Amino acid sequence: MDLGVALIGSGFMGKSHALAYRAVRAAFGDVPAPRLEIMCDRPLERAEIFASQFGFSRATDDWRAAVADPAIDIVSVTTPNDLHHDMVLAAAAAGKHIWCEKPLGLTLEDGERMERAVREAGVHSMIGYNYTHNPTIQHAKRLIAEGEIGRVTHFRGFVDEDYQADPETPWSWRCLRSRGGLGALGDLGCHLVSLAYVLVGPIESVLADMQTVHTDRPKRDGGRGPVENEDLASALVRFRDGFQGVLCTTRIAWGRKNKLAVEVHGEKGTLCFDQERLNELQLFRNEGHTAVQGFRTILAGPSHPPYGAFIPGAGHSLGFNDQKTIELAAFLRTITGGAKSGPDITEALEYEKVIHGIARSAETGARVVI
Amino acid sequence: MDLGVALIGSGFMGKSHALAYRAVRAAFGDVPAPRLEIMCDRPLERAEIFASQFGFSRATDDWRAAVADPAIDIVSVTTPNDLHHDMVLAAAAAGKHIWCEKPLGLTLEDGERMERAVREAGVHSMIGYNYTHNPTIQHAKRLIAEGEIGRVTHFRGFVDEDYQADPETPWSWRCLRSRGGLGALGDLGCHLVSLAYVLVGPIESVLADMQTVHTDRPKRDGGRGPVENEDLASALVRFRDGFQGVLCTTRIAWGRKNKLAVEVHGEKGTLCFDQERLNELQLFRNEGHTAVQGFRTILAGPSHPPYGAFIPGAGHSLGFNDQKTIELAAFLRTITGGAKSGPDITEALEYEKVIHGIARSAETGARVVI
Amino acid sequence: MDLGVALIGSGFMGKSHALAYRAVRAAFGDVPAPRLEIMCDRPLERAEIFASQFGFSRATDDWRAAVADPAIDIVSVTTPNDLHHDMVLAAAAAGKHIWCEKPLGLTLEDGERMERAVREAGVHSMIGYNYTHNPTIQHAKRLIAEGEIGRVTHFRGFVDEDYQADPETPWSWRCLRSRGGLGALGDLGCHLVSLAYVLVGPIESVLADMQTVHTDRPKRDGGRGPVENEDLASALVRFRDGFQGVLCTTRIAWGRKNKLAVEVHGEKGTLCFDQERLNELQLFRNEGHTAVQGFRTILAGPSHPPYGAFIPGAGHSLGFNDQKTIELAAFLRTITGGAKSGPDITEALEYEKVIHGIARSAETGARVVI
Amino acid sequence: MDLGVALIGSGFMGKSHALAYRAVRAAFGDVPAPRLEIMCDRPLERAEIFASQFGFSRATDDWRAAVADPAIDIVSVTTPNDLHHDMVLAAAAAGKHIWCEKPLGLTLEDGERMERAVREAGVHSMIGYNYTHNPTIQHAKRLIAEGEIGRVTHFRGFVDEDYQADPETPWSWRCLRSRGGLGALGDLGCHLVSLAYVLVGPIESVLADMQTVHTDRPKRDGGRGPVENEDLASALVRFRDGFQGVLCTTRIAWGRKNKLAVEVHGEKGTLCFDQERLNELQLFRNEGHTAVQGFRTILAGPSHPPYGAFIPGAGHSLGFNDQKTIELAAFLRTITGGAKSGPDITEALEYEKVIHGIARSAETGARVVI
Repeated sequence: MDLGVALIGSGFMGKSHALAYRAVRAAFGDVPAPRLEIMCDRPLERAEIFASQFGFSRATDDWRAAVADPAIDIVSVTTPNDLHHDMVLAAAAAGKHIWCEKPLGLTLEDGERMERAVREAGVHSMIGYNYTHNPTIQHAKRLIAEGEIGRVTHFRGFVDEDYQADPETPWSWRCLRSRGGLGALGDLGCHLVSLAYVLVGPIESVLADMQTVHTDRPKRDGGRGPVENEDLASALVRFRDGFQGVLCTTRIAWGRKNKLAVEVHGEKGTLCFDQERLNELQLFRNEGHTAVQGFRTILAGPSHPPYGAFIPGAGHSLGFNDQKTIELAAFLRTITGGAKSGPDITEALEYEKVIHGIARSAETGARVVI
Repeated sequence: MDLGVALIGSGFMGKSHALAYRAVRAAFGDVPAPRLEIMCDRPLERAEIFASQFGFSRATDDWRAAVADPAIDIVSVTTPNDLHHDMVLAAAAAGKHIWCEKPLGLTLEDGERMERAVREAGVHSMIGYNYTHNPTIQHAKRLIAEGEIGRVTHFRGFVDEDYQADPETPWSWRCLRSRGGLGALGDLGCHLVSLAYVLVGPIESVLADMQTVHTDRPKRDGGRGPVENEDLASALVRFRDGFQGVLCTTRIAWGRKNKLAVEVHGEKGTLCFDQERLNELQLFRNEGHTAVQGFRTILAGPSHPPYGAFIPGAGHSLGFNDQKTIELAAFLRTITGGAKSGPDITEALEYEKVIHGIARSAETGARVVI
Repeated sequence: MDLGVALIGSGFMGKSHALAYRAVRAAFGDVPAPRLEIMCDRPLERAEIFASQFGFSRATDDWRAAVADPAIDIVSVTTPNDLHHDMVLAAAAAGKHIWCEKPLGLTLEDGERMERAVREAGVHSMIGYNYTHNPTIQHAKRLIAEGEIGRVTHFRGFVDEDYQADPETPWSWRCLRSRGGLGALGDLGCHLVSLAYVLVGPIESVLADMQTVHTDRPKRDGGRGPVENEDLASALVRFRDGFQGVLCTTRIAWGRKNKLAVEVHGEKGTLCFDQERLNELQLFRNEGHTAVQGFRTILAGPSHPPYGAFIPGAGHSLGFNDQKTIELAAFLRTITGGAKSGPDITEALEYEKVIHGIARSAETGARVVI
Repeated sequence: MDLGVALIGSGFMGKSHALAYRAVRAAFGDVPAPRLEIMCDRPLERAEIFASQFGFSRATDDWRAAVADPAIDIVSVTTPNDLHHDMVLAAAAAGKHIWCEKPLGLTLEDGERMERAVREAGVHSMIGYNYTHNPTIQHAKRLIAEGEIGRVTHFRGFVDEDYQADPETPWSWRCLRSRGGLGALGDLGCHLVSLAYVLVGPIESVLADMQTVHTDRPKRDGGRGPVENEDLASALVRFRDGFQGVLCTTRIAWGRKNKLAVEVHGEKGTLCFDQERLNELQLFRNEGHTAVQGFRTILAGPSHPPYGAFIPGAGHSLGFNDQKTIELAAFLRTITGGAKSGPDITEALEYEKVIHGIARSAETGARVVI
């Protein structure tokens, strides 16, 4: 199956998409090799450089043309968040499959519009919840589903980074709610929600608090600009299956670089995971003599598919970009007729309802039903 | 200074008090050696056995007599929680100094009555918040106070155990709110609050959720009895100094044995501690080149007083009972004229207001001001 | 610069080479994109499948033809160890640059012949010591070179796996010294030597012991076959710079999957690394107040080049195959006129002299000068 | 049974003995409470202060008188190493039971003389190998004996500290071989040997290397004095049961405070322990599906006797001094008619033969049979 790709954006995620496109068929023999057709960025020169570097046939600075191009079957949207909305709408209108980074848009309404457009266009979508594709997480999901820790009784999750921890990090337009959308919740919190959904299912309601700790930041002109979106947020959540949980996120936790960590408590055991050690899973089971019970550190390996598509030996470690390749493989399988696997835009919208619900609850002080 | 001791109770904490009384002056040359006078428990035979084992001169099964005995200056209350109230009132009435385990009583009203009695009697008190006396925690407190991590911006704390994780653990009267008081909050949560207070100061308000996960437990007669107190509770808290925090506790987290863990985020760094590794402190500071930044694991040692009172070499590790000896030394110094150091009953009441506030908020769904 | 590639072998390392060839220019803009020309394996059908999967233009089962093909500039040798010798000799004779997996050959004599052939042919070579290319290791190397831990005083290194830990793992011809070469030393030990060289320099002499613990293994016919090569080896080494060290390897350490771990002691500090957590580096420095000293865990990030070529954010983790891409980039830079960076065949031969020296010392009981 | 104690020395170990004497019967109901009779140190004033602090009835600066005193049944020898020899000989001659810190003496000949004297006197002895009494180590010993990891195949052990890591730490007479005896081997290495013996049995031969890294140190007069004993030593050992092992020690490993760590490899699993986390044991077993295998961290608790003598809850942690109390309890049981438990002087001499064998092998370069 011939699948032409247009990649919009050449930043962190743009490069990650490009690497995934180049690796996916070499890693997974069961998916087609995408045809790298159009690289799109601004200015054009930048697009051209990256087209050459990433191996795309053409470069453009006109994303609308790229999206509409008849040689294109898949559009990768990796631009700043405020551009996702228009691009996804255009791609859906053009009947292209869409691989878009999170969050969908700056507001929940944007996201709802995007979801509807994609759904009505009947195209396939994959939203960039890359951490859900980690073989360790998929393994945890299987263990939970198979009852390895019994009925789930509680969930805790955290996602912390420190990219805004320094009060003197410069102000930018991203500090504005109107242009940058949510803060830590939008950047990080939605990843946490994705893991919660994948591991233990939907969230029913949230009760939250949030705070902008560094309320202004230095501007280039010597003054200080206001920060409107939250530096941190915490929520008491209730899951549809009746158990409770806690979700916390912050972008000002010094020393945390990608601390996306979850704890799942069950009637028979506990599972813990931390993305900073993405190749490890902690499992405690109440079995055998207490004298030899303990949390075990499971090292990712070929018995945790699809780790083996990359490396035949355990303990050799996948990296961040390998997750992206797995995500792409899942998307390609869906496009080529396989079952949906991984968060499409409809599922992603559910995640975003949770983070916007958290924001609303924090503003009102009342529990918000999702 | 001659200080006669009556110890009531010979369980976990009774033994820990006894070991502390025996060790305190050998470890700390600056405090008097307590005179171990009366061991009190029921039945009398048990008290006699422990009097011999722990080195007390006399044994009794009559705690009122023990408390009133003129040879007694200090009363150690280590009985089940529902007995604390009467014993503390009697000891205060008799003008004895009081070393009592937490929580104060089953209800906040009990605690308030106890605190008033002790305050009005003018006796000294120490409530058993042993973890606050850990040299590592004291060091963390100093580092925060000295600005090592800058202004505090966020706090997270957890205290988890698994002693009720098995749904088939038998029912007992402790499962009743009227006789056992709070659940995880009373057993564990108040310890967490004590660390929060010691490290970052008072809590202003709480917004909470809680749950009894295992709602009944097997009784001896083959039926099942109801569990009235909470298996877990979580709270969004606001500290008096303006920052937010999260406090969580559960008694059903498989594999957790004494997971009393805190994270303190500051403008310049982060401090983390976990009581399961009580001789370690994690510190991140935003200083020097990013290429060599990282969380450092500080091993407790003589530069963290009063560790050196026990061991002159770092990395050799204090144990749980050593914390209790430090607590006792602090109490003896207060009794012999030194400054208060460590939570007395007035401070302990503050902690309990928080856990009862959490319970109330969880019941009402509304934020509770402490 | 147009560089045509022939890849021989499609196993663990074959796939890793293929992924690297596909990723290298997308990750690193400063190197040419290799042209994937010939995939070679047996039977031909297998080569054809992998040519399609990995994106090679042609497939063959005739490695001699592939090596001699005028469209080829670089030959990747990823076959079983006993085939390296002939392939490298042929590739050198054909004037091709050679990317070959370790060890060079089954015997030191083989290796010496290969090194001479490559040297005399004047072609470039890179031997697959992928762990030396890990940004964390490169960072450690820099820290040591810059005196961050002072003069090196001691070195310890370990490399353990468990692929032969089960005594009932079937016998194969690899158990024979004549056909499989060295055991744990050849498979694993040479990687450890590579890290030692890269971090702290050449080894002068070794005094060693080794053991075949499981001396026979089950054969398919129901009998048992002899194991001739070592399950483990340990050596007391002296480095050229005057300090001592210890090198240990085993293939029978249950639970170890890629435990390639080193400790470098210096006059001012200590550096530790463990490949099972390849994105972390442990650093202790004797600086500042002892009360805040401790081993710090440095998470790999953009300040550890070339991590940033893959991911702009720290703590997101590179994987095993990313190391291989870095290795290839280094090789391509050498081929295109840059300085040598990473172990070529001449340096690799030095490593192999050490492991063969260890084997010889273990046999004689006497110290062997390398 | 009335047992009068004379304690000689009030340093690290003196205090630890005192705390153990005070705690032992409170912790263990089945042993007699020792009578603290004589505290001996120099000058007399110091002895008097410590007699008061530690609760001894009398003080003296005359150790010969203390040892000979008819009120004394047990003599604790905790003085600098060069005094052990004469004190043990005198105590044995006086028919007293002896609790002496390691190493026995400065030379192996001293140790042999001491062992013979004690044996011929028929008194009981306990040598201060406190780490062997850690419940975690005793648990590991049981697991190994019960076959939990199968037949032992390999052993690795390390004991590292940094008390001589700074090249400018002042010279003292302890740097002289004649007055200080061995270096790291005598201070630390013998502890490692004790764990090896306890866990996996006797050592048959050693092949070693050692080094004095900092060959001179600053003297008070401004000059520099020579360091004669080793800063580090490493040995390839063969155990009586046929497997090999590695033992390493250094006193110049920055950041290591009490890094007494062992790895025991077996046919079915692996056990690891690190004294810096003395309440944890790492266990890997080859059982169940590989997808859930991993090293488990066992937290010490009541299922690891005699932990429960101190604390009824797991994960609450024993400390260094608790080990000493366990050691004393074992000694008291032996004295009062129980079986020997823990290293007496005859067993301790075996350990010392190993460290002196290592020193000799390092000097000659040849394997030394113990």
